[in-house]
Amino acid sequence: MFAAHELSDDKLLCGGLRLLQPLKGYRAATDPVLLAAACPAQSGDSVLDLGCGAGAAALCLGRRVPGLHLAGLEIQPDYAALARQNADRNELALEVHDGDLARMPTALRRDFDHVIANPPYYATGGSPSPIPGRARAMQVATPLSDWVSAASRRLRPGGWLTMICGADGLPQILSAMGTKLGSVAVLPLAAREGRPALRIILQARKGGRAAFRLLAPFVIHAGPAHDGDRESYTPLANAVLREGADLLASFR
Amino acid sequence: MFAAHELSDDKLLCGGLRLLQPLKGYRAATDPVLLAAACPAQSGDSVLDLGCGAGAAALCLGRRVPGLHLAGLEIQPDYAALARQNADRNELALEVHDGDLARMPTALRRDFDHVIANPPYYATGGSPSPIPGRARAMQVATPLSDWVSAASRRLRPGGWLTMICGADGLPQILSAMGTKLGSVAVLPLAAREGRPALRIILQARKGGRAAFRLLAPFVIHAGPAHDGDRESYTPLANAVLREGADLLASFR
Repeated sequence: MFAAHELSDDKLLCGGLRLLQPLKGYRAATDPVLLAAACPAQSGDSVLDLGCGAGAAALCLGRRVPGLHLAGLEIQPDYAALARQNADRNELALEVHDGDLARMPTALRRDFDHVIANPPYYATGGSPSPIPGRARAMQVATPLSDWVSAASRRLRPGGWLTMICGADGLPQILSAMGTKLGSVAVLPLAAREGRPALRIILQARKGGRAAFRLLAPFVIHAGPAHDGDRESYTPLANAVLREGADLLASFR
Repeated sequence: MFAAHELSDDKLLCGGLRLLQPLKGYRAATDPVLLAAACPAQSGDSVLDLGCGAGAAALCLGRRVPGLHLAGLEIQPDYAALARQNADRNELALEVHDGDLARMPTALRRDFDHVIANPPYYATGGSPSPIPGRARAMQVATPLSDWVSAASRRLRPGGWLTMICGADGLPQILSAMGTKLGSVAVLPLAAREGRPALRIILQARKGGRAAFRLLAPFVIHAGPAHDGDRESYTPLANAVLREGADLLASFR
């Protein structure tokens, strides 16, 4: 368990969500908020967050869409405990299980309407972090293909997988989807207009047969470069990151 | 062979290239010009155009980069003959072979520095064209994976494949590349700002090991919608389509 002095208490969604997270280690920035905003879950749906960490994505989604049945799986027990604590503090129901997605806990071996995932990212050639929690969260100990397989097994036919990951993971993810997941849409995330996408949001449907789609990029910052302390989100990024707007609404 | 009255004499690259092409059937529009602009060939390099049609892409490339050794393969003899005629008329050397990429002619079983390809596109669910040449050119009689395999076999180690195709073909192409082709970059082509990419340019290197890259879209038309007869190309599209500028120069 984390000690209180090891944690910060951060605001997401303009304070709509309060998140305790370790000062050192993996810390939620924009990724889980964007992931939650891209999931097409509707009231009454069940959602599994694979690798839920401190619960940021699942809880952002719970705040945006009332009436969801939220579950999370987390391999690091201290993060899992923090996710439970974060759910309680925000008065959101989130069923958190300790475990590894390669050995799915029995309690989660059921069908979900949605799976969301923000797999840990470990840039090729970089050094692992000296901080164990961060190293674990950043290292692809579990290959992306295992994330896709685990997600596919947990989805009901017609259910949706929504992932956020490095753009360089796209070939591996598409290949892992095989014939089980289809109707894939890729949303490139660009820091600024005209920049390559470093991250992508990828959505796929179990049993989907529609053609692959490459959407126009979602641009996060306005202007050509960082401008000191000034607010620089694009209007759409502002709507998503501050107000929790539905990111892919215009594409459905 | 096409009769003279079946052909139009079109200008590409602001008249820098004259192209005879059938009035009915596959007609070069922007695709071969963009393909030629994206190929990183330099003077002295050898280039194979798989499915060269009337020669538009190979000849645009020959016009942009002097001193290339250009070869083309075309399955339809009347198009192959037209490609030879177009090369002569533009005083460019292009060695055109009749044949099928699935049974590569012996004369082309050598290594190339570059392979370029604009595989025929046949949208799922559409009807084949009643015009045989067009039906052949638009129908994926040869799966995209065969185009990638044939290209890979013809490239020297370190050689580059540059393709233009429908965005919906991306998963199939990436999967066909396997471990032989790498260092893949995808350039989305969008008709207008904010629109999904309907076409993509894809570049890969034989034996390449660099991470997959998803580039910012190349936007072809300026403004939110078609504006009658007014010129509406973006400045970059203008530079590429009219002046033959190097499309991917800023990414290398």
